[in-house]
Amino acid sequence: MSLLVVGSIGIDTVETPQTRRENQLGGSAVYFAFAASFYTRVQLVGVIGKDFPSVHRTLLESREIDLQGLEVADGKTFRWVGRYHENMIDRDTLEVDLNVFGSFDPKVPPAFRATPYLFLANGAPQVQRKVLDQLEARPKFVAMDTMDLWIETARADLKELLKRVDALVINDSEARMLTGRHELLRAGLDILDLGPKTAIVKKGEHGALVVSRHGHFAVPGFPLEEVVDPTGAGDTFAGGICGYLAQTGDVSADNLRRAVAHGAVVASYTVQDFSLEALKRIQRSDLDARFEMLLDLVRIPK
Amino acid sequence: MSLLVVGSIGIDTVETPQTRRENQLGGSAVYFAFAASFYTRVQLVGVIGKDFPSVHRTLLESREIDLQGLEVADGKTFRWVGRYHENMIDRDTLEVDLNVFGSFDPKVPPAFRATPYLFLANGAPQVQRKVLDQLEARPKFVAMDTMDLWIETARADLKELLKRVDALVINDSEARMLTGRHELLRAGLDILDLGPKTAIVKKGEHGALVVSRHGHFAVPGFPLEEVVDPTGAGDTFAGGICGYLAQTGDVSADNLRRAVAHGAVVASYTVQDFSLEALKRIQRSDLDARFEMLLDLVRIPK
Repeated sequence: MSLLVVGSIGIDTVETPQTRRENQLGGSAVYFAFAASFYTRVQLVGVIGKDFPSVHRTLLESREIDLQGLEVADGKTFRWVGRYHENMIDRDTLEVDLNVFGSFDPKVPPAFRATPYLFLANGAPQVQRKVLDQLEARPKFVAMDTMDLWIETARADLKELLKRVDALVINDSEARMLTGRHELLRAGLDILDLGPKTAIVKKGEHGALVVSRHGHFAVPGFPLEEVVDPTGAGDTFAGGICGYLAQTGDVSADNLRRAVAHGAVVASYTVQDFSLEALKRIQRSDLDARFEMLLDLVRIPK
Repeated sequence: MSLLVVGSIGIDTVETPQTRRENQLGGSAVYFAFAASFYTRVQLVGVIGKDFPSVHRTLLESREIDLQGLEVADGKTFRWVGRYHENMIDRDTLEVDLNVFGSFDPKVPPAFRATPYLFLANGAPQVQRKVLDQLEARPKFVAMDTMDLWIETARADLKELLKRVDALVINDSEARMLTGRHELLRAGLDILDLGPKTAIVKKGEHGALVVSRHGHFAVPGFPLEEVVDPTGAGDTFAGGICGYLAQTGDVSADNLRRAVAHGAVVASYTVQDFSLEALKRIQRSDLDARFEMLLDLVRIPK
């Protein structure tokens, strides 16, 4: 089944302790869509400027991502410059130019309005809400991400939106900020009180903790000998989850576990190179092979 | 089968953001022994001062821990005062008085010298080595812990000792310090090059990564709504692992996975109260019940 994602499309410059890469394709919706495209047909709603290189559009099209909802606005594409610390987790934003994304007013094309699966990638809650409001019916499954900025500046809007989604995918530090709770299980349970049936708390290299009323699920990060660039890990994690759910058409608790494990697998490829470089080199069969390795990684024999 | 542990026995004063507890029973060998005693018969080698309260000795005896190797020296027992940060992970040592532990010269009683299972709790490598040297035969399974102090000040001795053990149980930050590698899988693989067949890298609330030539194993921390005091978590984790191995008499890779999961379970009880308070309230059946919950926590359905 089809999966709609709405979020940022950007041009990133990333510095790691080892190297610097300029003008990479990035943005939450791009990472999400590319990851999900291994699993299902993805529809993208977002905005770019007239400077957006055609090579990036061609790349997304090569993954059969439906770009009907890709708006080209007067001005420049969203740009982000960031630098990772030695630990490859913490990062400083050196520069951020919202450009055309600053006045993003998402328009969901008619062909997308009956989507059964929806992901609201990181963005202002009041903008995320506009997408839900344009749909013909409430999708079968809605997940969303958010970030510290919105927790601090748009908490009321965020809380309203949380009542309307099935799952919140959120960083550990942001889960703590949102709930004021340090222990992630406690934070996750508090998130459930805000509306979502499932809280998917991302822990970077440590994987994720999935909290629900029907039991909890922990998945490790897939261990790697080297991490090149963590940018996009969280968005591709969400892309793997939602892509797998949409492909299988099954949003049961058991299938969500499989989906989250696939999310961890896709994210593990993402961080092995800059931008989408590692994901461009792999196929679905690579993801399935690493999924099997993940099953063995967590296996506790009877 | 019996399990010998050698390490510190101390009196701790612990401050958390919420509260402060003075003169608690602590020490790496104590935490380890108490945890392991749920699984197997434990033999303890350590030193205390004449000030050691008899109530603590009685507690250890109540767990059928064999105290033949408990030396009472002239002077005071090892004391540690620490304060945890708001995140309940980082801590500052406010005061440390080695007292009689400063000149600890372990003497393994004849009855302990044929132990098949040995754990060298955190201590100077040259002291840990003396224990191995006193044994009649190389035990079936030897594991050890270490810390930043010895990595910095006794690296050569530590490396010599590592050639003689089956498993190193080590904190993530110390694994990075020992190997100079940031990614824990890479650090673990480098540890294997130093001698141990298994590197068990502890990640606090995030569980552990077990690295070996025959495959890797990730176990999450058992999620809790509240952590009261993390002191002793790592030592009881190791105690659960070695206790389970000694009880089952099986050091296969598959059984080590079960053992590590039991270690995570014991550690999760430890942090729910100060000192050994939570462990004092439970029985083996509680550990087994939480082990089943851990199995469900990590379950990825076929």
